[in-house]
Amino acid sequence: MKLHLVAGGAGFVGVNLVRRLLARGDAVAVCDDLSRGRRELLPAETTGRLSFHKVDCSEAEALGKVVSSLDRAVDEVWHMAANSDIPAGVEDPRVDLYRTFLTTVGILEMMRRFSIGCLHFASSSAIYGDLGDLEIHENIGPLEPISYYGAMKLASEAHIRAAVEAFLSRANVFRFPNVIGVPATHGVIIDFVRKLRGMPRRLEVLGNGTQTKAYLHVDELVDAMLHIRSLAGRYCVFNIGPSDAGITVRQIAEMVRDAVSPGAEIVYGGGDRGWVGDVPRFRYSVAKLKAAGWRARLGSADALSRAIHEIVEQER
Amino acid sequence: MKLHLVAGGAGFVGVNLVRRLLARGDAVAVCDDLSRGRRELLPAETTGRLSFHKVDCSEAEALGKVVSSLDRAVDEVWHMAANSDIPAGVEDPRVDLYRTFLTTVGILEMMRRFSIGCLHFASSSAIYGDLGDLEIHENIGPLEPISYYGAMKLASEAHIRAAVEAFLSRANVFRFPNVIGVPATHGVIIDFVRKLRGMPRRLEVLGNGTQTKAYLHVDELVDAMLHIRSLAGRYCVFNIGPSDAGITVRQIAEMVRDAVSPGAEIVYGGGDRGWVGDVPRFRYSVAKLKAAGWRARLGSADALSRAIHEIVEQER
Repeated sequence: MKLHLVAGGAGFVGVNLVRRLLARGDAVAVCDDLSRGRRELLPAETTGRLSFHKVDCSEAEALGKVVSSLDRAVDEVWHMAANSDIPAGVEDPRVDLYRTFLTTVGILEMMRRFSIGCLHFASSSAIYGDLGDLEIHENIGPLEPISYYGAMKLASEAHIRAAVEAFLSRANVFRFPNVIGVPATHGVIIDFVRKLRGMPRRLEVLGNGTQTKAYLHVDELVDAMLHIRSLAGRYCVFNIGPSDAGITVRQIAEMVRDAVSPGAEIVYGGGDRGWVGDVPRFRYSVAKLKAAGWRARLGSADALSRAIHEIVEQER
Repeated sequence: MKLHLVAGGAGFVGVNLVRRLLARGDAVAVCDDLSRGRRELLPAETTGRLSFHKVDCSEAEALGKVVSSLDRAVDEVWHMAANSDIPAGVEDPRVDLYRTFLTTVGILEMMRRFSIGCLHFASSSAIYGDLGDLEIHENIGPLEPISYYGAMKLASEAHIRAAVEAFLSRANVFRFPNVIGVPATHGVIIDFVRKLRGMPRRLEVLGNGTQTKAYLHVDELVDAMLHIRSLAGRYCVFNIGPSDAGITVRQIAEMVRDAVSPGAEIVYGGGDRGWVGDVPRFRYSVAKLKAAGWRARLGSADALSRAIHEIVEQER
């Protein structure tokens, strides 16, 4: 039995990861400041293998107190703590500085002090910025993130890479795609569902609907992370995503409309971007991950269809 | 006449830049915390065009007070403020976090508040990490810095890139090579000179002396930055360096020995690296800068020869 510390473990991806780690028979200490995560999303504790700690992960001192309080040593750290409110980060660069980058700094500082050697990090495809029509593989350059969120994920990767040179024995970096599923807290599906619940005859969509994005279901994301964890390697970086090129915002809007309020009119805004940091086309290569033995079972459309039904259920 | 704010303007590269800006007839406000820089390195003020402000550039509030106190608006900001004590940064990641990255954050925050649109940034070849025998051009990947210094320079670039999307009208990123000249405060030449002054018969060298590095004289570095400033482009990234592949630490040791204490024995340590973050081979492409119309007049050996004589003079 291993003890995993999951930073940001009360958030969307975090709770799915925590459930899976517990199902494997391991123990989990969740650290979350509950700024966006919610404690009630975590499974009810019945096994003695799950503990929850409300703590700001940018504070190494406070994290250290949590680690000291545990009845055994932490084996692996999963860093899923970050700002997930992208528009808030566009308005104010300090949001991603503190929540997306300084959490990484705090976690690494704590790991250094307690000689914890193994880190798994949730990075993002946002580190790549807008590379136009290029196929985005892990070794591509230049890396020019166009959002503070993407910038602070890249900063985190850089800090982790230097920490591998300095003291970490192992780090895995997962570059997340668009991830969907439940418990949904933000994102395009829940936005559309809520808009249609509020105004059932008309769905307003940012941008002209032609943006194409690939979507992965959170169950498969957790699968992929655990698969990468099972590989060897001191510093491993992987794009994670489905095998297809993705679907358009227009298709998503129509799928949600059909599930929630068939017959509603869909009204598009102008331009091919929804917000600052939104990249219109994105050819995300998952060839490295396939070569390492993992591929998604669901394509973007199937993942969306499943997530839409789960989220409609959640929002009842 | 333009007003330039030079952050880190009392450091090695900073004072050379400030002199050149003043010589062009522009005005300069130097901001420096004097942690490594020294005020007396700046030219004596006789023109009314130079002001000095002791301030920690990671503090946007304090920087803002300086900017408010100036009798005209700042046109351009040059960010030369960073930790220059690489070994200190190896020991403690907070050194580069605060001095190398949070200075960038503080400066950008101040620029956003005062609507200053133009930033020139001193980045570093350290962002590339160890790419083995690959020729390092600006668009290469993956970027895996192996020192906290390199990581925090990459973090700074990422933050600046996102700021260009958000509010900056222009940013130039200079990826510095090994820069030599006076006033020297740190680096291989001054280390060797001081060691030989202390112990004239024996020079101990870290590593086996086979590391090859390219060196640029600071006069040429400032030339190159001003040339890039004269180009068009919203976000421009340039490697700066000499045209040759560099010279070995062994050659440098011999040149310094011959200048300071001919006949001293040179003793090498083991391994092909001097310290964490030291990259043994480094093929640095300056093709982009050449194509943009600038090339160094001095090769690494000539630049070293000149700098050694200047530093020997300085250290008398």
